[in-house]
Formats: sequence, structure tokens, C-alpha cells
Amino acid sequence: MSEAVSRPTLEAVAARAGVSRATVSRVVNGGDGVREPLVERVRRAVEELGYVPNQAARSLVTKRHDAVAVVIAEPETRVFADPFFALQLRGISKELTAHDNQLVLLLTEGRDDHARVGRYLAGGHVDGALVFSLHLDDALPALIQGAGVPTVFGGRPGWSGGQGGAAYVDSDNRGGAREAVRHLVGLGRGRVAHIAGALDQTSAVDRLDGYRDVMGDADPRLIAEGDFTPAGGERAMRALLDRCPDLDAVFAANDLMASGALRVLRERGRRVPDDVAVIGFDDMLPVAEQTDPPLTTIRQDIEEMGRLMARLLLRRLRRRPDETEADSAAGVVLSTTLVRRASA
Amino acid sequence: MSEAVSRPTLEAVAARAGVSRATVSRVVNGGDGVREPLVERVRRAVEELGYVPNQAARSLVTKRHDAVAVVIAEPETRVFADPFFALQLRGISKELTAHDNQLVLLLTEGRDDHARVGRYLAGGHVDGALVFSLHLDDALPALIQGAGVPTVFGGRPGWSGGQGGAAYVDSDNRGGAREAVRHLVGLGRGRVAHIAGALDQTSAVDRLDGYRDVMGDADPRLIAEGDFTPAGGERAMRALLDRCPDLDAVFAANDLMASGALRVLRERGRRVPDDVAVIGFDDMLPVAEQTDPPLTTIRQDIEEMGRLMARLLLRRLRRRPDETEADSAAGVVLSTTLVRRASA
Repeated sequence: MSEAVSRPTLEAVAARAGVSRATVSRVVNGGDGVREPLVERVRRAVEELGYVPNQAARSLVTKRHDAVAVVIAEPETRVFADPFFALQLRGISKELTAHDNQLVLLLTEGRDDHARVGRYLAGGHVDGALVFSLHLDDALPALIQGAGVPTVFGGRPGWSGGQGGAAYVDSDNRGGAREAVRHLVGLGRGRVAHIAGALDQTSAVDRLDGYRDVMGDADPRLIAEGDFTPAGGERAMRALLDRCPDLDAVFAANDLMASGALRVLRERGRRVPDDVAVIGFDDMLPVAEQTDPPLTTIRQDIEEMGRLMARLLLRRLRRRPDETEADSAAGVVLSTTLVRRASA
Repeated sequence: MSEAVSRPTLEAVAARAGVSRATVSRVVNGGDGVREPLVERVRRAVEELGYVPNQAARSLVTKRHDAVAVVIAEPETRVFADPFFALQLRGISKELTAHDNQLVLLLTEGRDDHARVGRYLAGGHVDGALVFSLHLDDALPALIQGAGVPTVFGGRPGWSGGQGGAAYVDSDNRGGAREAVRHLVGLGRGRVAHIAGALDQTSAVDRLDGYRDVMGDADPRLIAEGDFTPAGGERAMRALLDRCPDLDAVFAANDLMASGALRVLRERGRRVPDDVAVIGFDDMLPVAEQTDPPLTTIRQDIEEMGRLMARLLLRRLRRRPDETEADSAAGVVLSTTLVRRASA
């Protein structure tokens, strides 16, 4: 608060109503034990002065802010460039709004800013946090644990030890990847390549594992790491074509990378799906419908993931003291479905 | 804070260090007047217990959070669909991060949630607020005034009275619009139509005024209101062609609406710019470069607007008590430039 702003104080309300500070405080915080005529006098004084209770003070009493932080462990440039985050936020926003909780999105320029995010979380400004797009070597989980706010993660947390039983919501990344690769094999393809996501994220690792579940000891040159962006998909596709010109199918770990792969295949004169069948992951619209040809993919319900994260957190926050951590912790895993379009 | 979470308390630190609560509080809040050996003992106890000061309590003393709220008076669906907001946030984020201030984006589903935003702002969680995309009949300005946090607006505030001298950053919307229309007239066009933005926003009103400055008493049927979205541009263009089939130029109040207008003109068999010249506003990339044909437009530096808003607010927050409101209030207006591509 700047010095220039002056707001009516609790003291001013007390003086106006002719009661003590403690009485005003009790009335303002909805407490009992104040006689009705006094309540009425305080209410009138609050109204006349336009008094706004200082929630920093009030929250020391009520310990609730009706606000939930959302932390996306990516620079803000990626948050706005990748529609995945907008979809997840939409689900979160709907659920929080339905329970009159404020969505507080903490944006950063990059990982260097995560300590500041930790400080904000520890600062008593929110009741809990929803955290997604974690990378394995990120300090955020430790910072969040230090902050002591109840948290639900989007995606299976990858660190071991520490946060035993961390609550999270995830898609069945490994099962979905298996279905994608089985679909390509079912089309008679034998040289199936994989464009993996950033392998410091569990979603990328799980999808790679699903690919390996089906392909067994495939030629390791058939695997290239992308970074979940269209440009990363382009780079990986070029590398794959250079070292394995005989590949006849590609499973990309998300639709944005698949869209980049399709551009490179066209550029190199490969027909899709005739020469090379391509399948993505996400069913991100409109991307998956607007590629040339439209993209066959594995659908995950991203908005629903966001909604469930928020629901799980609000349930934790409402938990009675006699309920234990185990009642509401642990992971929720959503199933995926194959969506067939033209590319495979 | 949920009951399940237990953090070391101030009392625990005091007990461990063998000092009073008040001494711990003074040390933690960086206050003076505590002898060095005691400071050392408290610091060691804080470290050993992993004590995190409760910032809600601390901020009652320091009155600073190093956090700034950003409020966009649009539903979150629009925030993520219109690149304008991402650009403005980018500028804000860079400036706040450079000063180690946390960007706290308060998302809403719609106008019904603005009262909750007002409560969060009043709650002592941020030092100030940056507010943009205000609509004339929105309760936000009043709620923000009630919250008593220093605020800088993006775009000229449209309400009269009340917040005299509200600080804001805007583009020269009227001057830019004049330049756009003069360019079309300079191409020899006589039936220049205007697709206005949502006229409950001052940016839309100012661009319409700029159009009128040049066109004088133009045929009122040449003006159609859009809503700053591509679909709104399409609807307005159809209406204009239906009632003024002889129009030979269009000035759209932003690039997204211009992109919609171009689609309708192509659909109706009008060649651009031969039959109808089209000019937009914003120079929103990649949109303006990817339209067919690429869009001539009026460039405003949206990212710079965001940066300036943040800079202006941080300056207000640092202001000494003896400086008056007038020193740093009032508006900053950025100039615009014509960017010529193929559409006009």
C-alpha cells in the first residue's frame, strides 16, 4: 500500500460506532458474541465510512483467502504460445469460479523467478496451489513444500522421496502412447519412429515408455527428442529422416510437434499417410484438424484435468482436522482415446 | 492454510533461541534495535527449524509484498484467444521481473466475478494493480477505488468524475485512425467504411472519432460495430457489403477484425486492394503478415505499453510521502505508425 492512499481504519469505525476495536473486529469477521444493537451500529459505521476490512489482518483470524494460486513452470512466453495451458486454465477457472475462489496466476520469465513464486506462496496470499508443467530438475517442488501450502500437481510428479503421496491429476500417458504405436503397427508399419517430448518431464518419459512397450528393442536411431513445440518437431523430424530414411511411421508425443513433423515430411516429398503415417497426442484443436492432412491423434481431456485438479484441491482445503492426508492424497489418472483423422 | 499443514511457528523459534516473540519478530522483519549476539541466535533457530515468516503478518509491518496484480476486464477465454493481451502481459512481465516483483494475474470467467477481484485487491495481497480492457459500464474502477490500491490503467479510462487524474498508458488511437483513413483517401478511395471495435471501450470510440475527423459527415451506413474479434469483423463486413455494395475501402479498428473482413471480401468475390482497400490497426504479428493479402495497418507498440504501465506503477509505489499525486499521475500516450503491406 502506498503512503498516498488513505483508507478508513478499524479505529475510525470503532470511534464512529462508539464501541471498542475488538467489537468492530468481531463484527467484521462474522464472529458471534456481539449484541444485535451493537452489530447494527458497527455495520452502519462501516457503511458510512466505506470501510474495507484489511484482509491481511482478517486472514490472520480466518486463515482463508478464497484464492488459489496457479503456477505453470514455464516462461510466460510459452504459457501464451501453447494452447495446452489455456485449456488447462479454462478447466481450473471454471471450477474455482463455481466455488467463488479467485484464480491467481503467478507468471514468471523463467526458472530464476521460481524462488520469488515460492515466497509469494509462503506469504499467506492463497489457500493452496495448482502446479503444472514441472521439470525434473526444477526447485519448485522443494520451494512449494517449504511454503507449506496444500498443493495439487498437474502431471505425475517425477521426483523421488520428499513429497510422499503428493496429490496429482494426470492422463494415462503410457497407455495412450501404446495405443498410438499399436495403431501404426496395425496399419502394417514396421519402422515406427518416435518424436519424444522434453524428457525432463514425466509426460514425455511415460509416452516414450509406452512406445517402447510396443516396439521392444527398436532401433534407437528411431527416437529423437523434441521439446513439445512445433519447431522442436521440425528439428526432430529432419534428424530422423537423415538417419533413418526408410522410416514409414512417426508417433509424435504431442500435436504441436506432429504439425512440425508434417511440414518437414511435405518439404521432403514424403506423402502422408501413404509413405509415412503420422500420429500425435493431445487432440489439440484447432491444430489437429487444421494440419495437412488432418491429424490422427490420442485424445486427452486437458480441460477436465484442470477441473479435477481444482476440485481435488478445494476438497483438501475443506477437509476436517480429523481426516488424514491419505484420505484425499494420491493420483487421479484419466484415460485417453484414439481419434482417427487422415494422417494415420 | 489447511489444518493438515504444520509449519514451525514464531513461538517455536523464540523458544529455540531463548528470546521473546517480539525479538524474533524484530529480527525476521529486518528491524533494528536487537543486539548482534541475539540476532545471531535467532537466525540460527530460524535456519534449524526451517521457519518461514508468515508474510500476512509481516506485511502488516512492512506494508510491501513486492507483488503487482494484473486485471484484464475480459473472460479468461478471450485473454487467451486474443494475442493483444499476451503482448501486453509480456511487457508487464519483463518490467516487473526486472524489479523482482511478482506478476499476479487475476483471471475471471466474466464480469460477475469482478467483485471478487475487488476483494482480492483490497485484501492486502499486492502493492498495486495494472488494469486493462475496461468497459464503460464495468464496476471495476469503483471496486478498485474502494480497494485503495495504487493503479495504472491500460487505455484511457472512460468514466467521468471520481478517479480524477487516474494514471494510464494509451496509444494515440485517434491520431492513428486519422492516418489510416487519410491513407485510404490518398489512394483515391471515396466510399471508406469503418468497422468499429466494441464502443463501450475508449480505444474503439477514439478510433471511430479519428475516422470521423477525416470523413466528416460520411454516410452513417458506412459504419458497423464489431467486437474486436475475427468473427465480429466478418459479421460487420457482411452487413456493410449488404447495405453499401459500392464501398471501395475499409478501415477496421483492429487487425483481427480486418482478417475477418478479408475473408468475407474474398468470399463475395471482391479483390483486395483493387476493388476494396483494407487497413487494420495494431500490427499484430503473425496475423497481419499471414492474411491474404498481407495487411496494411497502423502499428502500436503493445508490449511497450505494458512495460510503461508497470514502470509507471513501480514509480508510484516508490514515491516518497512528500511527493504529491500530481507528480506521477496523468496519462502517457504513445504514437503510432503506418505499416504498408499489400492490402491498401
